[in-house]
Order: sequence, then C-alpha cells, then structure tokens
Amino acid sequence: MNQIKQKIILASRSPRRQQLLQMMGIAFEVKTKETDEDYPEHLKNEQIVLHLASKKAIAFENEIQENELLISADTIVVHQNKVLNKPADYNEAIEMLTTLNGSMHEVYTGVCIASIHKKELLYDKSEVYFRNYTVEDMHYYITNFKPYDKAGSYGIQDWFGLTCIEKINGCFYNVMGLPTRKVYQQLINF
Amino acid sequence: MNQIKQKIILASRSPRRQQLLQMMGIAFEVKTKETDEDYPEHLKNEQIVLHLASKKAIAFENEIQENELLISADTIVVHQNKVLNKPADYNEAIEMLTTLNGSMHEVYTGVCIASIHKKELLYDKSEVYFRNYTVEDMHYYITNFKPYDKAGSYGIQDWFGLTCIEKINGCFYNVMGLPTRKVYQQLINF
Repeated sequence: MNQIKQKIILASRSPRRQQLLQMMGIAFEVKTKETDEDYPEHLKNEQIVLHLASKKAIAFENEIQENELLISADTIVVHQNKVLNKPADYNEAIEMLTTLNGSMHEVYTGVCIASIHKKELLYDKSEVYFRNYTVEDMHYYITNFKPYDKAGSYGIQDWFGLTCIEKINGCFYNVMGLPTRKVYQQLINF
Repeated sequence: MNQIKQKIILASRSPRRQQLLQMMGIAFEVKTKETDEDYPEHLKNEQIVLHLASKKAIAFENEIQENELLISADTIVVHQNKVLNKPADYNEAIEMLTTLNGSMHEVYTGVCIASIHKKELLYDKSEVYFRNYTVEDMHYYITNFKPYDKAGSYGIQDWFGLTCIEKINGCFYNVMGLPTRKVYQQLINF
C-alpha cells in the first residue's frame, strides 16, 4: 500500500465523490467554484467528461499550491448517443427514466488530477442494464429520492439502483461518480 | 412501486445483507441459527449456494408464522472452479488474495425465500476482475480490515474493492451478498 504524500483537494460538491475518497482512506479538503457545464457540440462521450473535468480544474489554476493535488470530475449518462445530464425538474426526471427503461446505457466519468507542475486526465466507462420498471416505480423514486443532482436521474447506490439494475459491465464506482481504482493508481504514481 | 405485505425475517448475521435490505426500503427482523455450512461434494457453483441457502431456511421450518417471509442466503467465491469460503486466519486470507490477484473470479449468491406455504430459490452470478496488486496491498488490507467474515477475503464495498477491482460483469450487490434486484422482484411477486 503506497501512501499519497501530497495534500488532496477535491473540487466537487458531490457527496458521493466525497464518500468514495473517504472509503479509499484518502484525506482531502473540498473546494468548489461555480463553473458552467457547457462544452463544444462536436464532442462525444469521454471527450465531454474529460473537457468538463479539465475545465473545472482550470478554474483553480492560480490557486494550487506546491505539494497539492486537485481532483475534479464530471459524469454523464449516454443513451443511444444522446447525453443525459441532471434533470431540471420532476418531468425531466420522468422523461429520462422513461428513456432508460428496459435498456442499456453508458456512464462516463472523466477525472482531472492537477498539481502546480502537471495535469493528468483519465476516464472510465461503465454499461448499466435496467430492467423494465413501471410508471409507479419512477413516480415513487423521484418523489421520495429527488434525484435532481444526479446525471440520468438515478443513483446506483440508492433504492433505484438496488431494485432496477439487472447488471453492470465495468466499474461500479465510476457510475457513482469516481472511477476509484483508476484514480487510486493515478494518485500513487503521480 | 409495490408494497410488500408480509413480515420479512432475515436469517443472516451479515451486516451487508441487513444494510442492503434497509437500502431497499424493506422493514425486517433478524433471526439467526447456527447451521453448519457443509454441502455434498458433487455440487458445483450455484448448486452449492442454493443448497446452503435452502439449508439455512430449513432450520426455521417449524417457526415461520402465517404472513411471514424468511430470507436466507449464502455467498461463495469461485476461482478456476475452486471454491473460496471465509478465511480462517491471516495466512489463509493472504493465500486467497494471492490466488485472486490479477485475474477474474465469480461470485455466486443463492437466496431462499420461504413462507409457511412455499419456498422459492434464486441465485445470481457476477464476475469480478482484479488488477495486479502488491503483497503490501494485501498486508495493509488484511491487517486493517480483517476480512475474516467475507467469502474470498475481501469486501467489494471497502478499501480493497474500491482500489483493486478493474471491473465487474453482473450485479454489484450480489457480490456484497444479496442480488437485490432479483430478491426485490421475487418478494413483490411472492
């Protein structure tokens, strides 16, 4: 087990990402800044999340200190080449979950690790297969769990993930918002 | 979302199984009995976990009440046709993790759901792919996390799972000890 010597700054509001770093035994501080989540239209899949993770890091460019590593990340859901972000309201959440019903979608998370000296990017992709669920399932979930901060309108670690996912192919934690194994190896070798 | 009308009894000491039922929003009571985990030698893979889940239910045969559902389960790790159970001590844990290093193994969980009227069995199988990890990784993990109650000597939901798994193919929660999606659907249709 290699120790990480640098001070880790997590540039993310996501409670899931904070929880995952904790579970990895990594001490960190959270710093966040508002950044718009626009990206050039021609970008696809991993290009989008790498672009956005990088953009979130650039916002901190002049603030990173010697011996600090800044981690920023972005997660999107892609269904049949259509990108699903966070739902704005109940109707958009219903629409997204209706789209994903009974089929496979991909989850991409891009991560940027930046020091004062260099910047490294990585991403992971996982496939998620949903069972056929009912309108009542969606209504119950959205009303009770309010998944408005989640790309694709669901959390793999909550009621919907436990009861509606047939199987995944890839890294589970990548779907939660951080490809932990890749991030860990990148950090200890940075 | 369908309500489960019966009273659920979980016949398992596993804190992971208890946590998963909670996350599914299912109220339950825990009742456990000592049962030996022997099985006929000719059984393979899913036959083993179905046999053991069923055996754990049989121990409660005369105690299940009208309107109660008893859930029992068993999980094993299989690597190249060899079954790995819970490690007895540090050396056995090191031996198991050494066997699993850099390769794929399968996790089987068998579940028995029993009422006073009938008994239903189900199982799920997930593939887990480990990266190459070091002797120091194993030593750090076993010393600090003491995975002696875990088939295969690791937990997919702890430090080892987060930092050492490349990907999985199948149900994540099945690896934790309960194929939640299948159990949920079986319960609401029981």
